[in-house]
Amino acid sequence: MAELNGNLLVAQSGGPTSVINASVAGVITEAGHHECIEEIYGGLNGILGILNEELIDINDERSKAIEGLKHTPAAALGTCRYKIDFKKKPEKAAQDMDRLFEVFNAHNIRYFFYAGGNDSQDTAHKIHLEAVKRGYEMRVMGVPKTIDNDLPATDHCPGYGSVIKYNSVTVAEIGLDVGSMATDDGSCCIVEVMGRAAGWIAAGTVLAKQGNPANPPHIILLPEIALDEAAFLERVKSVVAEHKYCIVVCGEGVKNAAGEEIGADKTRLDAFGHPVLSGAADALASIVQGKLNLKTRTVKLGYAQRAAAHFASQTDVDEAVALGASAVRAAVDGKSGFMPKLVRLSSSPYRWDVALEPLENIANVEHFIPRDWISEDGFMPNEKFVEYAAPLIEGQVQVPMKGGLPQYTVLAKSRVEKKLAPRS
Amino acid sequence: MAELNGNLLVAQSGGPTSVINASVAGVITEAGHHECIEEIYGGLNGILGILNEELIDINDERSKAIEGLKHTPAAALGTCRYKIDFKKKPEKAAQDMDRLFEVFNAHNIRYFFYAGGNDSQDTAHKIHLEAVKRGYEMRVMGVPKTIDNDLPATDHCPGYGSVIKYNSVTVAEIGLDVGSMATDDGSCCIVEVMGRAAGWIAAGTVLAKQGNPANPPHIILLPEIALDEAAFLERVKSVVAEHKYCIVVCGEGVKNAAGEEIGADKTRLDAFGHPVLSGAADALASIVQGKLNLKTRTVKLGYAQRAAAHFASQTDVDEAVALGASAVRAAVDGKSGFMPKLVRLSSSPYRWDVALEPLENIANVEHFIPRDWISEDGFMPNEKFVEYAAPLIEGQVQVPMKGGLPQYTVLAKSRVEKKLAPRS
Repeated sequence: MAELNGNLLVAQSGGPTSVINASVAGVITEAGHHECIEEIYGGLNGILGILNEELIDINDERSKAIEGLKHTPAAALGTCRYKIDFKKKPEKAAQDMDRLFEVFNAHNIRYFFYAGGNDSQDTAHKIHLEAVKRGYEMRVMGVPKTIDNDLPATDHCPGYGSVIKYNSVTVAEIGLDVGSMATDDGSCCIVEVMGRAAGWIAAGTVLAKQGNPANPPHIILLPEIALDEAAFLERVKSVVAEHKYCIVVCGEGVKNAAGEEIGADKTRLDAFGHPVLSGAADALASIVQGKLNLKTRTVKLGYAQRAAAHFASQTDVDEAVALGASAVRAAVDGKSGFMPKLVRLSSSPYRWDVALEPLENIANVEHFIPRDWISEDGFMPNEKFVEYAAPLIEGQVQVPMKGGLPQYTVLAKSRVEKKLAPRS
Repeated sequence: MAELNGNLLVAQSGGPTSVINASVAGVITEAGHHECIEEIYGGLNGILGILNEELIDINDERSKAIEGLKHTPAAALGTCRYKIDFKKKPEKAAQDMDRLFEVFNAHNIRYFFYAGGNDSQDTAHKIHLEAVKRGYEMRVMGVPKTIDNDLPATDHCPGYGSVIKYNSVTVAEIGLDVGSMATDDGSCCIVEVMGRAAGWIAAGTVLAKQGNPANPPHIILLPEIALDEAAFLERVKSVVAEHKYCIVVCGEGVKNAAGEEIGADKTRLDAFGHPVLSGAADALASIVQGKLNLKTRTVKLGYAQRAAAHFASQTDVDEAVALGASAVRAAVDGKSGFMPKLVRLSSSPYRWDVALEPLENIANVEHFIPRDWISEDGFMPNEKFVEYAAPLIEGQVQVPMKGGLPQYTVLAKSRVEKKLAPRS
């Protein structure tokens, strides 16, 4: 493969994670080692910013800032949920593609890296195909990230280890708190975590048990398994009878037998006639409190869980950096249209490697928890899941602190001069 | 003052904090230095357990466990919300007092320490008065704790520094996340924190700004200041116009102009006819989404915030330990009916000392944020508040980790043999 000289563009897409910036740091650091890569640019707010030719010059950032990205949550380059949709909006999609390649060409972008989840891998794949079709020499790589852990082919996704590490410590701490207040009256606390389709995040809180079946969480409700309300209430009752309290974790997308999300009950309207914004935990709390007359409180971690870099997994950060670097090496080596993935060599001791997967196998495919990793009654991931998840939360990220708070990195974002007319 | 020989009993009451166990560790460690204190007992679940003669022998705990209490959240001895209410239930209260002194006498308790908030200080005060009345020689001390920071006389309360440290990092992280996704459509995230009457906890998240007015949180709603809905919506609009996103923190007890909690709207009923369990953040989100048509998400930290020992303040732990130890020294010195309090000597550099306050000045008095520590429009604590709060979150507690999670201490709880017939 002939050496390809030119500039590199990296951008981020979709919901952020604690380590999506670590992947970008991996890309940038590795890119600095290759002479064929001339300038390193960042695209602001993913595809959306690139369409508007909003690029920043990474060479202008201080090297300390690039290192700081490894422990900074959220998307330092900004992100977007913009989709190039050839099916629903073919004309708009064709226009967008024309514009993207105008921008690539104007800035001599020959290496393009897109960090994101399912949709973003799909976008990267489309851009790769388009480059081939147009005969525009550019190497396109997807870089995986998603707290949802629902990408296929890779053992797991960067971002996942950190979210379940934070959620597990949170559930353990809530469990100590509620347990220490528990009296014969009993009490219940329901913790809602992210995960609309796949239950990987909710399942990961099983690690809070630290091997002790008596420890919380006592029940984990996964979106993959339809809620059997009677069995659930029976289980809450028996847990409270044994421990005087019950900690339930639910994925936000938990569904009833009819396949409807229980947190999106359209019959509860607020003063404006909109559905009440409550969510799965509050809906479950209404059921538990109403039917068991048991004091029930809820916790909804929301965005906090995917941004909790103050308690991120060092393993997760290391893997995110490695995947970013690996994407660059593969591209320099002539590859395009791939996503580096994590391959597990061994769980104990935990050993992993990186390999390449064609983007066409990734785009828009969702990966769910195998049914045989969950207890027969559906209320708890089993030892196969624990073996899988436990190594992913190992290691503490050390974040520089000042005034008692982490010092996260904010990029200077020095703009690259625009060369094109504004997008029409 | 003559030396008083006998046993010590320590118990915990009310809602736990990240450092209420550190206070108990302070009591236990200091007690070990005084020969007049013979046995050290812990009462399980506060007054409730003592009434049932459920005592544990602290001497049987490993010294490592006592040290571990300094970084273990929740109430290691268990807690309760039991009230000895002479006003509403005089007969029951008199019976309870008789029983308590039976237990004290049976186990030769001569030192009694009760760690808790307003109600618990009231209970400690009543027990002190009762001991005097009965001529039962016992030294009773309250030990302050409450995340609510609403005790009078003390500069602040142990537990407060840790809750605002955790809430501040959480708000900063959520802000980075939401900000990095912000596009011209705008978005809003509302974070609900504890604090039903006093807004100390919500106000503390101003530290997330780290001195930069542009940083989140952009609006803080306090229970002390009636919500002016129109002014609030106007402010959200202008923040979004400037930053493309807006982070709002609200205390759970935020009230409307009529003095009603906006999160306890009794008109929204669920399938069982119970009020919808949503809370202040969801109620505010309905308003913002409904009236501004702005994408709005909520986070409800609930119990997670007061149990987050993985990100506790070392300053808070040090003060909690010191107050526990100080209570013991004062009691050995002959004092009874007091609570050790924190006295601030200087904010910068931060210096503090401990003094004693009579329990009669503490019990059932609530302390609110001074109005002149809040901006005129009521939406943000000002520099006086920041000067007050900033030192309280300094320093990181180092928690021993295993398998990627903190190793919290669980006491062995070896029971002291009962000497009385069960409570009738």
